[in-house]
Amino acid sequence: MTTETWLTTLITETPQAGFELAITLSRRGVKYTQPNPEVLKKLRPIYSESAEALMEASHIVAINFQTVAAANNYWRDAK
Amino acid sequence: MTTETWLTTLITETPQAGFELAITLSRRGVKYTQPNPEVLKKLRPIYSESAEALMEASHIVAINFQTVAAANNYWRDAK
Amino acid sequence: MTTETWLTTLITETPQAGFELAITLSRRGVKYTQPNPEVLKKLRPIYSESAEALMEASHIVAINFQTVAAANNYWRDAK
Amino acid sequence: MTTETWLTTLITETPQAGFELAITLSRRGVKYTQPNPEVLKKLRPIYSESAEALMEASHIVAINFQTVAAANNYWRDAK
Amino acid sequence: MTTETWLTTLITETPQAGFELAITLSRRGVKYTQPNPEVLKKLRPIYSESAEALMEASHIVAINFQTVAAANNYWRDAK
Amino acid sequence: MTTETWLTTLITETPQAGFELAITLSRRGVKYTQPNPEVLKKLRPIYSESAEALMEASHIVAINFQTVAAANNYWRDAK
Repeated sequence: MTTETWLTTLITETPQAGFELAITLSRRGVKYTQPNPEVLKKLRPIYSESAEALMEASHIVAINFQTVAAANNYWRDAK
Repeated sequence: MTTETWLTTLITETPQAGFELAITLSRRGVKYTQPNPEVLKKLRPIYSESAEALMEASHIVAINFQTVAAANNYWRDAK
Repeated sequence: MTTETWLTTLITETPQAGFELAITLSRRGVKYTQPNPEVLKKLRPIYSESAEALMEASHIVAINFQTVAAANNYWRDAK
Repeated sequence: MTTETWLTTLITETPQAGFELAITLSRRGVKYTQPNPEVLKKLRPIYSESAEALMEASHIVAINFQTVAAANNYWRDAK
Repeated sequence: MTTETWLTTLITETPQAGFELAITLSRRGVKYTQPNPEVLKKLRPIYSESAEALMEASHIVAINFQTVAAANNYWRDAK
Repeated sequence: MTTETWLTTLITETPQAGFELAITLSRRGVKYTQPNPEVLKKLRPIYSESAEALMEASHIVAINFQTVAAANNYWRDAK
């Protein structure tokens, strides 16, 4: 669907890096449906200045973080 | 429900291919409820130009990606 | 709650058949709350011609597909 | 919170009985928040005649069915 | 965040007690965001007399019940 | 994405600390999308005084709590 490689592993060194990967996944989910950067740019203020949209963003991140955290075995062995 | 074969495996070589399969699953979920391509075409601008709809799309992809990622054991053994 | 038998197993031969079972489960979830076929028929155009409703349908299918896919061990041994 | 015993096990004999238990759990989730049967009765037409509400009902059932299905090991050993 | 101890274990004796713990978790999720009892009291009628809010309440309980049920190994060994 | 370290482990001593971590994760999900503290401050009353927003907050916390609880093996061995 895209020729660009943007995701080669779900493994991250720290939980925080995993959370940030979850954010990337959430944004990519939007970008696959609307690849036009002009349209996305126009919608940006809606995402970032509406309380509902910000909560929905956090909601999607939470779901993706479940996936990334499970992939990393919850970083249980990290020190 | 359909005579076309479109899904033979959940296994993909890379996480990115898995993410793209999650997108396919999300679209198919729509298509089974509304198989008419004319109606879908008419609705397309709504999906792709509304901030809420784009976030909901990303939300559904996140859920399907959980399934695909688990199926692939999170590509933990990939190199 | 119903006298009809409609679900005897979650096991399907292929992932696609599992996805279609997920659609059946989603529809049954509606039908248990509103068993009257006349009312359901009246609501049908809303389900199938609104972008939001189609996405919500795909959302529910995604959740049910998680269940069916787990039940089938993600069809990992299928060939 | 309630003196009535309504849930003693998540184990059911068949997937269909498990799905019906998921419906019970979904309704109980409503009833704990609004125990007054008069208010619930007044709201009933909204639940059962709005497309959105019916889909949300199916959505909640799908989540509860995940729990019940996992509890029953997906009825994999059923015959 | 709070000095009060309100959650010491996810283990409950019965599934029903687990479901009621899921309700407690759902309410606490609200209370952490809005700790003011006056504001919560004012919002109470909205929660308990709107069909959408009651369904959303049941939705959140369903998610928390997944967690509590898994913690208790689905009470499979209960008698 | 941020230079600040805010998440080094998902392991907590008690379920309550885990629930509070889930709240932190939910807020961070918002903050990554809207890092401007001025905008967040302006939106705060919406989050905390609308019944829908409070329920959505609880919803997101429930999802993040699933992750934290699984990471901690549900605090089954806690005493």
